[in-house]
Amino acid sequence: MNRRDQPIGVFDSGIGGLTVVSALRELLPNERIQYLGDTARVPYGGKSAATVERYSLEITCMLLEQNCKAIVVACNTASALALTMLERTIAVPVVGVIRPGAEAAVAATRNRHIGVIGTRATIRSGAYERAIRALDSAVQVSARACPLFVPLIEEGWLEGEITDRVVRQYLQPLVEDGIDTLVLGCTHYPLLRNAIGKFLGNSVRLVDSAENCARAVSHLLRQENLQANPGTKGELAVALTDPPDVFLEVARNALRLEMGEVVLRPLVPSK
Amino acid sequence: MNRRDQPIGVFDSGIGGLTVVSALRELLPNERIQYLGDTARVPYGGKSAATVERYSLEITCMLLEQNCKAIVVACNTASALALTMLERTIAVPVVGVIRPGAEAAVAATRNRHIGVIGTRATIRSGAYERAIRALDSAVQVSARACPLFVPLIEEGWLEGEITDRVVRQYLQPLVEDGIDTLVLGCTHYPLLRNAIGKFLGNSVRLVDSAENCARAVSHLLRQENLQANPGTKGELAVALTDPPDVFLEVARNALRLEMGEVVLRPLVPSK
Repeated sequence: MNRRDQPIGVFDSGIGGLTVVSALRELLPNERIQYLGDTARVPYGGKSAATVERYSLEITCMLLEQNCKAIVVACNTASALALTMLERTIAVPVVGVIRPGAEAAVAATRNRHIGVIGTRATIRSGAYERAIRALDSAVQVSARACPLFVPLIEEGWLEGEITDRVVRQYLQPLVEDGIDTLVLGCTHYPLLRNAIGKFLGNSVRLVDSAENCARAVSHLLRQENLQANPGTKGELAVALTDPPDVFLEVARNALRLEMGEVVLRPLVPSK
Repeated sequence: MNRRDQPIGVFDSGIGGLTVVSALRELLPNERIQYLGDTARVPYGGKSAATVERYSLEITCMLLEQNCKAIVVACNTASALALTMLERTIAVPVVGVIRPGAEAAVAATRNRHIGVIGTRATIRSGAYERAIRALDSAVQVSARACPLFVPLIEEGWLEGEITDRVVRQYLQPLVEDGIDTLVLGCTHYPLLRNAIGKFLGNSVRLVDSAENCARAVSHLLRQENLQANPGTKGELAVALTDPPDVFLEVARNALRLEMGEVVLRPLVPSK
């Protein structure tokens, strides 16, 4: 098989990475996408760096067995903690969500004060700060972990009084700090875009790490001459390490994603 | 070593089972307790029965390696999905949280209408309904999954406006159904006892599965002649499969638990 016809492998700790898939499908409709969500061990967001590295490598290897031409780490926690290791370890190109999000944020800010929200592990890693400061060392970064956002989204409470109050609780301090740009540093968060936008109004620009990651993938494929032939019919295959929970339906509906039957690919038991 | 001097092994998917440990320490101050929280794979609540069984057996084997005289499954999800398998598989007695909670609820209800709240996996399993109906087939059960409660507790938001609203959102339908007794069917939930009690007032009795599990353990040890000698100084050792998150502090403070240094016992990598 020609390398260009091989699928793009996309992984996340669970279902949230489908926001990246949705952006990829829109931008690159000819590509075949193989998605693998590690629902047996979701979430990665509260776990240690060593554990997230190990899980990320295992899941990546399962995608490489399917002959993927590139790997997209559609998970901020895994991008923050495991991307460098993956780049060093595997032979196909790897794209994460952090650098593209940092680049878009630096391009968007006017007052050079950027907010970043994400899981505890992503924020604790400081990965966005480092990526932003590497681009412009004069930018100030205010970061905040928002651990309630993922469960709110997975419950399907994308709007309403409770969601509005949780959004305010987490984001009010960032607004008071004076940010003019906010990076949605978790692939779940685009599903809360409306509630977050309603609270922030027009004064703060939202940077969606899913959209920017898709642009980086498109750029990479062009650069490496790996784009699918324009005549190819793109498609999406979704596999999970544990049977899907209700959140798959929430995401499928919110993102209007077409996918075939979801395949179960269990992890091999620990010895 | 005399069997009576061996520790009781207690496990949970994470930190929540420490509510059971707290009840055990109070009721059985002479016992040595070895706690193992599977923080590398927490939570079990959204995962499949097969996966929860496999994880539960792995963690139980790690406790048996430490020579435990009995195993306490301080996790409603694992009790609902893996207790029968564990009872069949291991040679020491096993106590879960479901049957003790069901017994206490049946003893407490006056109008024979019991509410049960828990994780998605616990509620979907129907384990409380079965245990309650086995005791009194005329009891009506209203069950509801409350997936936001655990993240609220782990964030340390044990009270306040957001917590009150989430409590009302989940519990109002059960009150309207006419329950007079509510089983807190997740070992995290005793930490929300005040917020839940404030909403329900005096009309609904709360059944704490942690407290009732500790009573069942006490009963079992007497029955099997396995109680520690009354002169023994009890103690608590806590081990986790991944380094602790902020929630360990939340739980330690809320439960006023004394424990030595927390030990890391990583899982052996999957092959």
